[in-house]
Amino acid sequence: MNSLWTRYQTYFLRNEQLGFSLDVSRMRFTDAFLSKMEPLAQRGFKEMAALEAGEIVNPDEKRMVGHYWLRAPKLAPTPELATEISSTLDDILEFAAQIHGTGRFTDVLLIGIGGSALGPQFVSDALGGGDDAMRLHYLDNTDPQGIDRVLESLEFRLEHTLTVVISKSGGTKETRNGMLEAQARYKKLGLDFARNAVAVTGPGSELDKVAINEGWLRRFPMWDWVGGRTSVMSAVGLVPLALQGLDMKAFLDGAAAMDEWTRVTQTTKNPSMMLALMWHFAGNGRGEKDMVVLPYKDRLVLFSKYLQQLVMESLGKELDLAGAKVNQGIAVYGNKGSTDQHAYVQQLRDGVANFFLTFIEVRKARAGVSIAVEPGMTTGDYLQGFLRGTRTALYEGSRDSITVSIPEVTPFNVGALIALYERAVGFYATLVNINAYHQPGVEAGKKAATAVIDLQLLVRQSLAESGSKAQTADEVAAHVHADAEAVYHVLTHLAANDAAVSVAVGASPAEDRFTLI
Amino acid sequence: MNSLWTRYQTYFLRNEQLGFSLDVSRMRFTDAFLSKMEPLAQRGFKEMAALEAGEIVNPDEKRMVGHYWLRAPKLAPTPELATEISSTLDDILEFAAQIHGTGRFTDVLLIGIGGSALGPQFVSDALGGGDDAMRLHYLDNTDPQGIDRVLESLEFRLEHTLTVVISKSGGTKETRNGMLEAQARYKKLGLDFARNAVAVTGPGSELDKVAINEGWLRRFPMWDWVGGRTSVMSAVGLVPLALQGLDMKAFLDGAAAMDEWTRVTQTTKNPSMMLALMWHFAGNGRGEKDMVVLPYKDRLVLFSKYLQQLVMESLGKELDLAGAKVNQGIAVYGNKGSTDQHAYVQQLRDGVANFFLTFIEVRKARAGVSIAVEPGMTTGDYLQGFLRGTRTALYEGSRDSITVSIPEVTPFNVGALIALYERAVGFYATLVNINAYHQPGVEAGKKAATAVIDLQLLVRQSLAESGSKAQTADEVAAHVHADAEAVYHVLTHLAANDAAVSVAVGASPAEDRFTLI
Repeated sequence: MNSLWTRYQTYFLRNEQLGFSLDVSRMRFTDAFLSKMEPLAQRGFKEMAALEAGEIVNPDEKRMVGHYWLRAPKLAPTPELATEISSTLDDILEFAAQIHGTGRFTDVLLIGIGGSALGPQFVSDALGGGDDAMRLHYLDNTDPQGIDRVLESLEFRLEHTLTVVISKSGGTKETRNGMLEAQARYKKLGLDFARNAVAVTGPGSELDKVAINEGWLRRFPMWDWVGGRTSVMSAVGLVPLALQGLDMKAFLDGAAAMDEWTRVTQTTKNPSMMLALMWHFAGNGRGEKDMVVLPYKDRLVLFSKYLQQLVMESLGKELDLAGAKVNQGIAVYGNKGSTDQHAYVQQLRDGVANFFLTFIEVRKARAGVSIAVEPGMTTGDYLQGFLRGTRTALYEGSRDSITVSIPEVTPFNVGALIALYERAVGFYATLVNINAYHQPGVEAGKKAATAVIDLQLLVRQSLAESGSKAQTADEVAAHVHADAEAVYHVLTHLAANDAAVSVAVGASPAEDRFTLI
Repeated sequence: MNSLWTRYQTYFLRNEQLGFSLDVSRMRFTDAFLSKMEPLAQRGFKEMAALEAGEIVNPDEKRMVGHYWLRAPKLAPTPELATEISSTLDDILEFAAQIHGTGRFTDVLLIGIGGSALGPQFVSDALGGGDDAMRLHYLDNTDPQGIDRVLESLEFRLEHTLTVVISKSGGTKETRNGMLEAQARYKKLGLDFARNAVAVTGPGSELDKVAINEGWLRRFPMWDWVGGRTSVMSAVGLVPLALQGLDMKAFLDGAAAMDEWTRVTQTTKNPSMMLALMWHFAGNGRGEKDMVVLPYKDRLVLFSKYLQQLVMESLGKELDLAGAKVNQGIAVYGNKGSTDQHAYVQQLRDGVANFFLTFIEVRKARAGVSIAVEPGMTTGDYLQGFLRGTRTALYEGSRDSITVSIPEVTPFNVGALIALYERAVGFYATLVNINAYHQPGVEAGKKAATAVIDLQLLVRQSLAESGSKAQTADEVAAHVHADAEAVYHVLTHLAANDAAVSVAVGASPAEDRFTLI
């Protein structure tokens, strides 16, 4: 028996009930590594148990972290929470049935960004099809042209489009903008937006108040103990999923079943902990290697993007829990196999060895019967051949990989897959001693953006005051007491978009002259 | 005048004709770096001139590299080539007009992978809309379920669907499989595939022969001097683009105009060379930093993916031109701004500093008039605010970035953008002394996949010969003289997909027993 085959079996994890398996044999760790990490792994189990019991494990934001309760309400720390979760689930199902029953709606327009869009997008694409009860569309940015394209494609059935606005804080500008643009479009067509609008938001938020004041069709709650990137099993993900007509209960059950498996406190029997340990091994606990994620299944193409958010926003942190500067994180990218083999496996195989790979294998090729593309060979056999061949070729070239196998892409299995990675991310945070549940860096970007927005008002005002005299960026900057380059970018933006502002291009940016007429 | 504003202007590159600009001021290089690199940059210009003149610059494959001629046929090294390019362009336009004229077709099904799909996908999504002459769909993988989903969505209009099969060699298995699956579907519906089929392939290839024998509607050539990842301006990209009804001539003209600009041999005046130098600076010429690409425009979301292929497949090489082992490459990822700010800018700002960023700015927000989302503020102002705010916040956190600005997303500008990066990739290859135009690593993966496919036939045969006696992987492996683990994976795959093969799961993989009935 050769040593790789032995190694494969030594660390092989499978769960018959779930049909899942995890193969870490192509990661070149040793038992000594596992022994060294064992105390941290045990701490991870303890911290996770405390988290699930409702302890404040997000110290900065002083919040509980409760996404595991969403699929097992009875585990919530208080009966009130358990009831709130359960009754929201019932409300969602009832609402979806009611909407389907009216026959009035054919499409759903989801307005949200980040955690309020990626989860629904992934789940909808993974599980949807021609038989869906409603079709989903998204406004997930503040790009006017992008918004126009989506709204124009819905123009003739906007009356039959239910718009779901998702924002936990209710203060996310991109989402607010998308909502206003959609509202304006309904109005332009003489339609009553409120009759077609649903809010998913924190009770009492700005968005919640708007929804109440305008008499929207329905509101669903988001709770402060559910983070955006783990909100797909709250109303954020479940309202769109139920409207699409997918099996919400199976989705939650899959996650609950994976949660049970990944509560095992024997390290080598816990697939989430083994994943976290492999990430630690690959990058020396400092993110030295990128995580390339390749699901060999078209329906899972967005899983790589979903993980990109889950992993990077959770683990990309400046400070550890002791306040030391650590600049943690793991870069994640990938699309799908075998397609990506024709895009960049060239580099993975021959180029800079700055990554480890995760293959996601889906065992069942298709529902129906396959044609033979060669004697005895199907399209699905080729897909499997490319996955296995690539895994082997990369390993022989000293590129390590993990393989996760699932039986099929079903609501149950997608729920389980998400749960597997949610817990792995939580465990990894313990291994490197960081808070996986906040996002302090996002605020800085928002503040910087607000400064630009505020500057624009000042700059335009200043141009107006100069009358017909053309101004340079330096002149306007002196007038508004701001940085000349920042002013220059605002001026250029105005010249491209504000019909009243024109530019006479000079020999250099400092010599460009702007006028407001 | 503050020093950053000065620095911004010192290195600022803009082209009034193109409306393009490049800002490298937020990369922390010095003039000393530029001086040190100058001899290599000059070598880059010389090698590029030789390439454009038709020298064999892809030594392994003994081929010319001619994608620059595709948009300026008169620059081709021989009159015959020039005529061939020009007449193919004419043929494409004529064919598209003819197809549109019949009124018979509403949709295009493109079957291709890698270089034969990513370019068309990017261009179509960037430039398409509700007014397109035909709608594009793709089979870009050998996933049976993915193929089923696309073909089912086309079921009721397959008669009106023109299928374009794209494969340079004609031997790409994924494409061959997609073609056979599509063919079977047309047949099942009683439709004549050949009447709806177009081939884009190397003259004399397997695919070419099939198209001739079956009497397909039309064939277009691919030339051996155009690589897959730079083929979007050959028939590969232009046939779908013309069928969609986009402006092919403007697309080519944009690339030609950018080519002219980037032929300048003064280093700091050449945007492609400056890009290449910045990549070299960021990663010490060894790909030590990932390239994160964030276009702040929904229509450019696939540009990051397009660049992922162009950059990684071109630059991810084991050996340099002298045969030394260098393991070069630059990892590329990204989706779009400001959406990605809510996904992983947390890590970019606070986490592991293993990347540099490229912002793609589109100056014009939208075609029509914008509503005010706040007094004096539009959705597009916010998009600009997020871009500028993020650039500033990241720079202050010691994260470097490049900003490329274009006026609007038009065929002309998309052509120019592609040309800008194609030449930057070529220049970078000179800076690090590698061949950017081959892909030796892709072959290894294909060989490994073929081995798996071949093994499957043997394993099934062996099961058949064992009759009703259940076999372990070790037993079958001994019989077929193959690696037990490889056999195990094949057996598991068969058990999941071949109705005749069943498995009795044991305590470990070695104890699983397989039977063919």
